[in-house]
Amino acid sequence: MKKKALPLSHVYRLLEPGPVVLLTTADTKRPNVMAISWHMMIDFKPPLVGCVVSNRDYTFGILRKTKECVINIPTVELIKQVIGCGNTSGRNIDKFRKFGLTSSAASQVKAPLIDECFASLECRVIDTGMVHKYNIFILEVVKAWIDRSKKHPPTIHHCGRGNFMISGRTIKLPSKMK
Amino acid sequence: MKKKALPLSHVYRLLEPGPVVLLTTADTKRPNVMAISWHMMIDFKPPLVGCVVSNRDYTFGILRKTKECVINIPTVELIKQVIGCGNTSGRNIDKFRKFGLTSSAASQVKAPLIDECFASLECRVIDTGMVHKYNIFILEVVKAWIDRSKKHPPTIHHCGRGNFMISGRTIKLPSKMK
Repeated sequence: MKKKALPLSHVYRLLEPGPVVLLTTADTKRPNVMAISWHMMIDFKPPLVGCVVSNRDYTFGILRKTKECVINIPTVELIKQVIGCGNTSGRNIDKFRKFGLTSSAASQVKAPLIDECFASLECRVIDTGMVHKYNIFILEVVKAWIDRSKKHPPTIHHCGRGNFMISGRTIKLPSKMK
Repeated sequence: MKKKALPLSHVYRLLEPGPVVLLTTADTKRPNVMAISWHMMIDFKPPLVGCVVSNRDYTFGILRKTKECVINIPTVELIKQVIGCGNTSGRNIDKFRKFGLTSSAASQVKAPLIDECFASLECRVIDTGMVHKYNIFILEVVKAWIDRSKKHPPTIHHCGRGNFMISGRTIKLPSKMK
């Protein structure tokens, strides 16, 4: 695997810009993967992330039961796989096989890393108090991995109904914003 | 004002890609504005948004008291104002005056729209149950405004410590993803 450990204090830098992510889970049958855009950082240290997984999604039941997942961040090269994962359900198919995604064992959780994604965040569900009302899961990132050979990897940002924005140029300006 | 009403069912298309937003509030003294990136969609209809406002921020107390705010979405032309708002506190200064931002009256809430932003979402706080533990406010968007003269407005995405990504090219592909 090309990915190396990323300090947990840097995790927010990956999620704040708002990329589509591939969320992997694993039950006893096989690992599953879904595409989501509804996520946000909640705290820096430890890194806490909120995400919405609809109770209509196959992932929902697995996430609630296993309390583990991996947030994988794809680049534009994977856009067809991302859309494929978004248009299908793991109830009926093995998405890893169907879309040619490669899984690697994570270090802290049973859900797998996706090799083709440049970053992977191993997460534990630490709070399900908002699941009933809003389908919001509170995750703690317990281990983070990144492929540092990619400097400004072109991430995918969903704008609705098949419209995607690809991350563009970067600017560095003096800022006290963390 | 150049902005026209946007159907509430389209609001998610603005927030899913993950832009930095300028959050306005208003107490009896004067309106205030802060920059945040920690937000996510929670539901489509009505559009519900979760956002994190730290209890160290001046906005926190106003938001909890007034239960109203406006999410304004800036483009790259406003990046200096965004950083300015992120580096200062409304406790000490009038940020609208300091950064040359123009306010317009909203239709449903007391917090103002920012004229210079291409989109503005009037919000009511509908749930503060997660404020104590996570600083998460649940907002319902009650009225949305957009300047349709801007086709793919270059939004600002925060990558940490003064690094910003500007939204790039767009792709349209067949997708069932909403």
